[in-house]
Amino acid sequence: MRTYLDCVPCFVQQAIDSARRVTDSPMMHEQLVRETLAAAAEMPFDQPPPVMGQLIHRRIRELTGIRDPYHAAKQQANAFALRLYPDLKRRIERAEDSFALAVTLAMAGNIIDLGVKSHLAEEEVHSAIVEALEATLDRSAIDDLRQAIASAHTILYLADNAGEIVFDRLLIEQMTLNKVTVAVKGSPIINDATREDAEAVGLTKLVNVIDNGADIPGTVLEACSDSFQRLFEAADLIIAKGQGNYETLNECGRRNLFFLLKVKCPVIARDISTNGDAAIDQKGVCRLGQMVIRRGAR
Amino acid sequence: MRTYLDCVPCFVQQAIDSARRVTDSPMMHEQLVRETLAAAAEMPFDQPPPVMGQLIHRRIRELTGIRDPYHAAKQQANAFALRLYPDLKRRIERAEDSFALAVTLAMAGNIIDLGVKSHLAEEEVHSAIVEALEATLDRSAIDDLRQAIASAHTILYLADNAGEIVFDRLLIEQMTLNKVTVAVKGSPIINDATREDAEAVGLTKLVNVIDNGADIPGTVLEACSDSFQRLFEAADLIIAKGQGNYETLNECGRRNLFFLLKVKCPVIARDISTNGDAAIDQKGVCRLGQMVIRRGAR
Repeated sequence: MRTYLDCVPCFVQQAIDSARRVTDSPMMHEQLVRETLAAAAEMPFDQPPPVMGQLIHRRIRELTGIRDPYHAAKQQANAFALRLYPDLKRRIERAEDSFALAVTLAMAGNIIDLGVKSHLAEEEVHSAIVEALEATLDRSAIDDLRQAIASAHTILYLADNAGEIVFDRLLIEQMTLNKVTVAVKGSPIINDATREDAEAVGLTKLVNVIDNGADIPGTVLEACSDSFQRLFEAADLIIAKGQGNYETLNECGRRNLFFLLKVKCPVIARDISTNGDAAIDQKGVCRLGQMVIRRGAR
Repeated sequence: MRTYLDCVPCFVQQAIDSARRVTDSPMMHEQLVRETLAAAAEMPFDQPPPVMGQLIHRRIRELTGIRDPYHAAKQQANAFALRLYPDLKRRIERAEDSFALAVTLAMAGNIIDLGVKSHLAEEEVHSAIVEALEATLDRSAIDDLRQAIASAHTILYLADNAGEIVFDRLLIEQMTLNKVTVAVKGSPIINDATREDAEAVGLTKLVNVIDNGADIPGTVLEACSDSFQRLFEAADLIIAKGQGNYETLNECGRRNLFFLLKVKCPVIARDISTNGDAAIDQKGVCRLGQMVIRRGAR
């Protein structure tokens, strides 16, 4: 997905929010905002928004000397989600359609995204879960995914955020585990999950976990390691979680790729609505907050 | 008021909204956004936000060759407010405290601000009026203003927006008319009232109307004409409407100046709360949507 003009104010807001999270220095806040403005003035808008995210957050790390500004937030999100895990696991086991509920909860978990919103209250996660438990599901999309998982020999699962990966684990546990490789980010970027988070939530004991070699809040293939790119090319099925992966991979044209996300921004809602290969709701409109399952191509 | 970092995403959003209002050309939209970003990266943050507004809107006019992009919107707002005028006038006449209601409605009319929100629905104006009619008033601030008006020999009324000036007229009609001079903007800037609007709503027949010689959505004295500056210096009392006048004059230190506004942005709400010389509500907090009467200095 290209960068829309409406993404630009959001970049600036992200720079402000992130700078405030990392340092109390008003001078550093101002410097970062000025640098973001200057960079955004020159950025190629045909690149997806996460490329700008990479640039902003790299600069925050450079300016502050803090390698992983969201480290505590990620640990907290993992711990919080792990406390929810036993109850959600039980609900999935008891559900009439366990797979469908696991998919829905995996999308709900995508609410834990500190790139969109700098602070997230635990109540918002609870609300997203309640909504997921009560959601009217897109049965045909779920069956499509179920079928794709059943017939794939190798599944590459592109994780999104810390905390959220506990919800991913619930879905992954519905798959044949030795088929699955989970990819996390190569180094810290916002609250995206890295290997440390995969370990913290027990994923490394369950399935093969690799990192993609990059520090972009999405998946820009050219920026990823060769080994990741080979796996991406070879996988029978790719499951890509979250907005960042949608923004960076929605034009890759792969039919064996499914996006699972919760829509948290109006630009993405519009992109999904207008470029939709399937109606999103009865009116063909994707709304904010919606959980979306979507193939990479018809 | 200085420009806060939180004003910056709003500048960018304003540039996008205004560009879209004026032209359908995506190239011009992009050019304007890039220029706004580059300018904001260099702008002195000790200047008030309307200075950036001036720059953005000047550039829109240059790029599009349209001298007054908000002309139709201003005409529409005037016509709409004039339709409300007879009923509001009657309510004021019948009110127990006509002056208090006129002041409150003048603040409510400040909702008609296309700098904050690029499109305003008529329902929002109706809601603001209903809220004003039902508001619990700050009696002591109103009495303070009443007293200041009664004892002033010359009153300079700094108008804000088209449409809103119909509400200003209701308040001005509570004053001794030959004491009052209304100042409008020197040339078109967003939907700020100019002489044409003052004529359209009948103000020029009622009181002396001057223009301030500038195209800034506020009052930056150095940028105004000499004749305006002399009037500003000489006036016994200044009534300054709207956020833009608050942003540009709140540090002028004049006790004989009253701001009347409806708070539409969190930065101004915070500025009023933290720099308050009077408690804004019982907790000393100014909230969004609040109608505020405030002296320029203790």
